[in-house]
Amino acid sequence: MAALRLSEIVARVGGELIGDPDITVLRVAPLQAAGPEDLSFLAQAKYRSQLRETRAAAVVIGRAERDATRLPRIVCDDPYLYFARVAQLFAPADAVSAGVHPSAVVEADASVPASASVGAGAYIGTRARLGERAVVGPGCHVGARVEIGEDSRLHALVSVYAGCRIGRRTIVHSGAVIGADGFGMARDGERWTKIPQVGAVVIGDDVEIGANTTIDRGALEDTVIEDGVKLDNQIQIGHNVRIGAHTAMAGCVGVAGSARIGRHCTVGGAGMILGHLEIADYVNISAGTLVAKSIKRPGTYTGIFPIAENREWARTAAQLRRLDELAERVRELERRLTERKRGRKK
Amino acid sequence: MAALRLSEIVARVGGELIGDPDITVLRVAPLQAAGPEDLSFLAQAKYRSQLRETRAAAVVIGRAERDATRLPRIVCDDPYLYFARVAQLFAPADAVSAGVHPSAVVEADASVPASASVGAGAYIGTRARLGERAVVGPGCHVGARVEIGEDSRLHALVSVYAGCRIGRRTIVHSGAVIGADGFGMARDGERWTKIPQVGAVVIGDDVEIGANTTIDRGALEDTVIEDGVKLDNQIQIGHNVRIGAHTAMAGCVGVAGSARIGRHCTVGGAGMILGHLEIADYVNISAGTLVAKSIKRPGTYTGIFPIAENREWARTAAQLRRLDELAERVRELERRLTERKRGRKK
Amino acid sequence: MAALRLSEIVARVGGELIGDPDITVLRVAPLQAAGPEDLSFLAQAKYRSQLRETRAAAVVIGRAERDATRLPRIVCDDPYLYFARVAQLFAPADAVSAGVHPSAVVEADASVPASASVGAGAYIGTRARLGERAVVGPGCHVGARVEIGEDSRLHALVSVYAGCRIGRRTIVHSGAVIGADGFGMARDGERWTKIPQVGAVVIGDDVEIGANTTIDRGALEDTVIEDGVKLDNQIQIGHNVRIGAHTAMAGCVGVAGSARIGRHCTVGGAGMILGHLEIADYVNISAGTLVAKSIKRPGTYTGIFPIAENREWARTAAQLRRLDELAERVRELERRLTERKRGRKK
Repeated sequence: MAALRLSEIVARVGGELIGDPDITVLRVAPLQAAGPEDLSFLAQAKYRSQLRETRAAAVVIGRAERDATRLPRIVCDDPYLYFARVAQLFAPADAVSAGVHPSAVVEADASVPASASVGAGAYIGTRARLGERAVVGPGCHVGARVEIGEDSRLHALVSVYAGCRIGRRTIVHSGAVIGADGFGMARDGERWTKIPQVGAVVIGDDVEIGANTTIDRGALEDTVIEDGVKLDNQIQIGHNVRIGAHTAMAGCVGVAGSARIGRHCTVGGAGMILGHLEIADYVNISAGTLVAKSIKRPGTYTGIFPIAENREWARTAAQLRRLDELAERVRELERRLTERKRGRKK
Repeated sequence: MAALRLSEIVARVGGELIGDPDITVLRVAPLQAAGPEDLSFLAQAKYRSQLRETRAAAVVIGRAERDATRLPRIVCDDPYLYFARVAQLFAPADAVSAGVHPSAVVEADASVPASASVGAGAYIGTRARLGERAVVGPGCHVGARVEIGEDSRLHALVSVYAGCRIGRRTIVHSGAVIGADGFGMARDGERWTKIPQVGAVVIGDDVEIGANTTIDRGALEDTVIEDGVKLDNQIQIGHNVRIGAHTAMAGCVGVAGSARIGRHCTVGGAGMILGHLEIADYVNISAGTLVAKSIKRPGTYTGIFPIAENREWARTAAQLRRLDELAERVRELERRLTERKRGRKK
Repeated sequence: MAALRLSEIVARVGGELIGDPDITVLRVAPLQAAGPEDLSFLAQAKYRSQLRETRAAAVVIGRAERDATRLPRIVCDDPYLYFARVAQLFAPADAVSAGVHPSAVVEADASVPASASVGAGAYIGTRARLGERAVVGPGCHVGARVEIGEDSRLHALVSVYAGCRIGRRTIVHSGAVIGADGFGMARDGERWTKIPQVGAVVIGDDVEIGANTTIDRGALEDTVIEDGVKLDNQIQIGHNVRIGAHTAMAGCVGVAGSARIGRHCTVGGAGMILGHLEIADYVNISAGTLVAKSIKRPGTYTGIFPIAENREWARTAAQLRRLDELAERVRELERRLTERKRGRKK
């Protein structure tokens, strides 16, 4: 485990150091859990009381908290971002050795540079191309003509169908499936006829794709995931979708075919976006919300049923079913009151 | 890439050709993206304006649009279905070669015909049987006694548990899991006791199963997916479910145990069907809708919270929590008005 | 297939036998499907009519049903639990043979006892440790330093990331991914910076994890699944979540990061629990319900939009959007009525 002096950390990540520069820390830890070898951080004012009690060797704090502790401290603009960067300094370099494992199968005309790594039992299809230092984990399937950029990594058991392209420094977690056929079919009397899905999936640089997430190939044109997009686990992206740069989606989200999501959006867990919609840049969709029409303006959008104790919910739901009738009764009351008023005025 | 003359297309797929029969096209493309080597199509009247501007070599149109363009054209009853069929003519034959890859493991008493294909690293269990021309992709797991029919295909990294049966011409996408144990257990004081799941999964002909979809084996009897059913990605089908022929379900749908879904139904993305329910034939469930009781009659059913800008939603949700009280207040108003009326009549 | 005399069953599972102790049964079956070689059971009073018509050789019934049939019968406190236990007696022992398949890759310093089984093409990473009789299915990925306890089983194609620990007698189904990176990142201007996820996943004894379920590793500390937890398929558990002992979750559930779920809870299919919440012990969340705030007291909680025929739903949804206005109109009516009353009193 790396040990770092506070002075080294400030030299590499920035910020103002108050206290002994030679204090050594071994890891980052939350305020409550930190011990005397840990660097901790205060990212939200509501945890300020924990600052008083922490056993951390030093803390990272915002400018407003500069004098809130007498501990050795690093003062910076954004403690949470600072914490992320320090955590990267400490993160153990994952021991992936370059080279093709003897049990992997690499087709003869695939291109695998010496700096790349292909894990045990992985398969690399015909004319596939890996970039420098790309890592294909054990048991992965990389189809024909797939391209994987420099420094990208597929964890174990990822499947990438033929013809898909992944950019640089992109991470794909286990069980993700990139490029399966989109859900395209035409009614043919009482049966369905399959529409061949001949587009591909194109994924940009610095993307992260979570475990068991699926991104379908386009029908005629490509499904596109732009640079810096972050997708959590268990997400489903339909064919011909485009997701704008730096948009982030939490677990279990679904995006139906041909939807176009803007840049810098966020979608909370289990959010669902229907097909052929357009979502503007800087839109936030709350968890559990179904988006059934396009959203043209930035903002936060929500549509979830409030939870209640079951009996109370049942009453609310029963009233909800009669809401149209209730509105009609209110109209009727208004009519009666107004007529009477008129009646008396006569 | 195949090049086809319009006359060849009409000979194989039907329709009436207006214009030069020797025009050659290389692929199908949407109206806006089509170039001079492409065949395009007008599937919905709302895209009619694109018809005027398309650079396509020729178009497929419905009878009502017969004279809406002067381009070479194929007139037919259902342009979308026609497009699907032409796309199949153009779709590149996937280069799967027959035979068992040397890195695959096939148990000695499994039955694999010479016309079948078993990919790199795949495993075929004891007494499993593949049909003629069946394809088991790289890294797949085919358990003991599994049967896979003629011309069916498992893409890479599919898992089929012991004893499950898949029909003919059925496609299963990567990451799908067929036949894991259903979620069956009995309360045993404060613990759970597992109920062995000894049924299997039986899948018909011409079915398509999406990436990372899971279909559990039955507890005592089988889980059944009838002919022509189409399941998108990330779907969960519980134990002992039966899905009727030609029903289609979009991504992220869940069907709980022992539900029986009719034929020719559709379920929109993230629709959820609770256990032990019965859904009639020709029922459409909207995206995001939870079905909590049986549906006896064909029709379209919906239950989704309307989305709104977050502050507006919060007001609506707050009122919704007081809906029972609001209804009581309306009843009280009705009472007061009626009493007063009586009072005045006296 | 095992054949068991009723006397043997009662000797092993308990209960009171009424009728010929030498009757032999071959399997358990539901009342309607049972034949003359089957033992059936009546778990709920509503199926009592089926008791009259069953062709079963014998039945398991509760004390209240003691005289509801003249069939040979086993009378017990909880027929469903009894059925689970008898089904375990009949369940075929799965033929997993000990030893490492020649096509598996086991790193030299991994620890695999002779009684353990490692399937075809599986990978066992450096310093991983399997317990006695542990089974790692074909194609699994077991990362560095992973620990898997005695008698636990990973079905085919499971992925366990480095450093995660799984207890004893735990079952993990195909496609599950244990220990992928949690969804942690900090805003860095218009981009996202990844927060290294250096915690692990710790799973207790007697846990079952469904197909394609994903459980993320913690950011700094561990994600914890306590003893006896049962997770169905397609579930997503975020980083730093803790799930209390014997809690059960149905398919498609999502639990966001740092949520703490109590013991003996149940979550229905597609239930969704937001991040950083606390759920008390003995809480039941209904299917399709989103939990957006902590739940401090045991009980059943629900929040689902009632389903309706689509046109009716559209009317309800339209009124719902105007609910705040409707409440205002009711307030106005109350005001008018009250003022008039005052007016007349003057």
